Amino acid sequence: MSETRIRFGILGCAEISRKVSRAISLTPNAAIYAIGSRSLQKATNFAASNGFPESAKIYGSYDAVLDDPNVDAVYIPLPTSLHIKWAVLAAQKKKHIMLEKPVALNVGELDQILEACESNGVQFMDCTMWMHHPRTAKMKEFLSDPQKFGDLRSITAVYTVAVDQEFLENDIRVKPDLDALGALGDAGWYCIRAILWANDFNLPKYVTALPGTVFNKAGVIISCGAILQWEDKKVATFHCSFLANLTATIKASGTKGSLHLYDFLIPFEENQCSFTTATESGFTELVTGWVPLPSQHIVMTDVPQEACMVTEFSRLVTSVKNDGGVVEKMWPTWSRKTQLVLDAVKASIEKGCDSVSLS
Amino acid sequence: MSETRIRFGILGCAEISRKVSRAISLTPNAAIYAIGSRSLQKATNFAASNGFPESAKIYGSYDAVLDDPNVDAVYIPLPTSLHIKWAVLAAQKKKHIMLEKPVALNVGELDQILEACESNGVQFMDCTMWMHHPRTAKMKEFLSDPQKFGDLRSITAVYTVAVDQEFLENDIRVKPDLDALGALGDAGWYCIRAILWANDFNLPKYVTALPGTVFNKAGVIISCGAILQWEDKKVATFHCSFLANLTATIKASGTKGSLHLYDFLIPFEENQCSFTTATESGFTELVTGWVPLPSQHIVMTDVPQEACMVTEFSRLVTSVKNDGGVVEKMWPTWSRKTQLVLDAVKASIEKGCDSVSLS
Repeated sequence: MSETRIRFGILGCAEISRKVSRAISLTPNAAIYAIGSRSLQKATNFAASNGFPESAKIYGSYDAVLDDPNVDAVYIPLPTSLHIKWAVLAAQKKKHIMLEKPVALNVGELDQILEACESNGVQFMDCTMWMHHPRTAKMKEFLSDPQKFGDLRSITAVYTVAVDQEFLENDIRVKPDLDALGALGDAGWYCIRAILWANDFNLPKYVTALPGTVFNKAGVIISCGAILQWEDKKVATFHCSFLANLTATIKASGTKGSLHLYDFLIPFEENQCSFTTATESGFTELVTGWVPLPSQHIVMTDVPQEACMVTEFSRLVTSVKNDGGVVEKMWPTWSRKTQLVLDAVKASIEKGCDSVSLS
Repeated sequence: MSETRIRFGILGCAEISRKVSRAISLTPNAAIYAIGSRSLQKATNFAASNGFPESAKIYGSYDAVLDDPNVDAVYIPLPTSLHIKWAVLAAQKKKHIMLEKPVALNVGELDQILEACESNGVQFMDCTMWMHHPRTAKMKEFLSDPQKFGDLRSITAVYTVAVDQEFLENDIRVKPDLDALGALGDAGWYCIRAILWANDFNLPKYVTALPGTVFNKAGVIISCGAILQWEDKKVATFHCSFLANLTATIKASGTKGSLHLYDFLIPFEENQCSFTTATESGFTELVTGWVPLPSQHIVMTDVPQEACMVTEFSRLVTSVKNDGGVVEKMWPTWSRKTQLVLDAVKASIEKGCDSVSLS
């Protein structure tokens, strides 16, 4: 194994580890080095069925992965409630961390993780994969163009997914002791991130949950939404739910232009995707049509977005490890802002939809 | 002029009268018979520049149109504050009424109009033109399909249009004495109608304005939004604004399917438009794409939507006039429900975004 590659240890055999393992394999500057599960058999089976290299270490505990001195970085897809324990421990063992979202149950926990990362000089990145898709950079270019988009006035993000009754009662993502944030942590995280991303990560002044939050029997959120407001009257709304057919929409309106897409977090197709923009749209003279018509922008991709993420993370880790670089603060800052807003939505829900100030 | 055609009188030379005049001309069962303006010269010019038949009567007042016994029906595009006076008078003169939206400043005024229509046996229809587009019926078919769409869970409607400073201060649509409902009456009307239409015109239980309403200097709403809630936890949100680039979106999520389009009130093109649906959407096994992909449905049209509206209205009027039919209650009922929700949004804005109960 080439020493120029970042050697990954994977904590747990979560379903999503399959996709990320594939991404690590596809990434020139990364390599799968180890996997650990509480069950050695499970880890063995996982490695076998996901094409791990023969040389991959198979461990019967997470600790063993963290104790392996050859592991440079860990990917942590564990349930949210376990993040604080394992991410802090990983940082203390000087492992760089790629942490699944939602990153923590609240910003207090996240701060402990980020402090551990900072004091141990390890890179932190959350696994909001769509941030790394080349389409995302293209869209940002449009949103940042004062002539084509102007100033953002409103943005709507929706992520819904229809789950079955079994999921609603028993899935990790709706268990109070595992992922207590429910649909807000899972689907809402993406919406909040999209809104902040479009707003250059300026935090809103007020966060107000929308009425109509739905909880499962255990009291975990399975559907909710919120409105975010900035001082310049800019507004954002989002809706996230486990109760409706899969949708993943961003719709941004600026003073001069607009942008929309329907598959923001997982593109409809891996090799090709698109987004739609319009600038200075108006109606025809008799108001019987639009001029100009919106434009569809196709983005071709050779590399899946999760591999783009692993590439960027590994580049940063390489810089810290080999080139004496310092850790990149942007990613943990973005995670923290996302968590701050998520916490505010939760607080607003708990206060009967009263506004929560973030200033 | 064939007597089988419904003879229209047009009150006023509003910009939108041009499109509706064209629609009347295009409609086999309707004909332009008269136009009245406070200025005879303006009416004469309007008739000349919009291809009115030579036989068209040109009047220097609205009263003269209403007093012409050959006028069967009137199209009223006057500012909202004038609707009650002229629509009530038109009904008393036994003229059937096609009334521009917003139909009234509040439901109290609308009720006076509707009572005048009912007691005089005249047909009432508001000019929410997109309701009559063949695409709308196709979309409704999808939304009503228990296998393809299931139960509606959430719907978002957005209509924004970017206007200039001159409009924001001086246009009819933002003048307290002319169209005091501002963006809520103009753009919000369409959003509320879309939401009710998708909900089979079941009224929501609660209406709550979203924080962040923007007013112009005269105190008229130029940007606002609201959330509507039904007892079964169904939610709808809308955003309407004069401050952002033209967008006209409906996005509906059901338990089994979803629907979206970007040009709901004026299709991008007059002869062809589309909407997109998906049913039981899911991700590929590794969550790197969607299966099935959404489907785009193309709808070809020979007849503009406003001509479809005139056709339907004229059909109903013909039935009342010639065939001894009774007036169709559906259209006034839909207008009234739209106005009720609009009033509730306004009331909620005035109450600092407190919820307003519609039960």
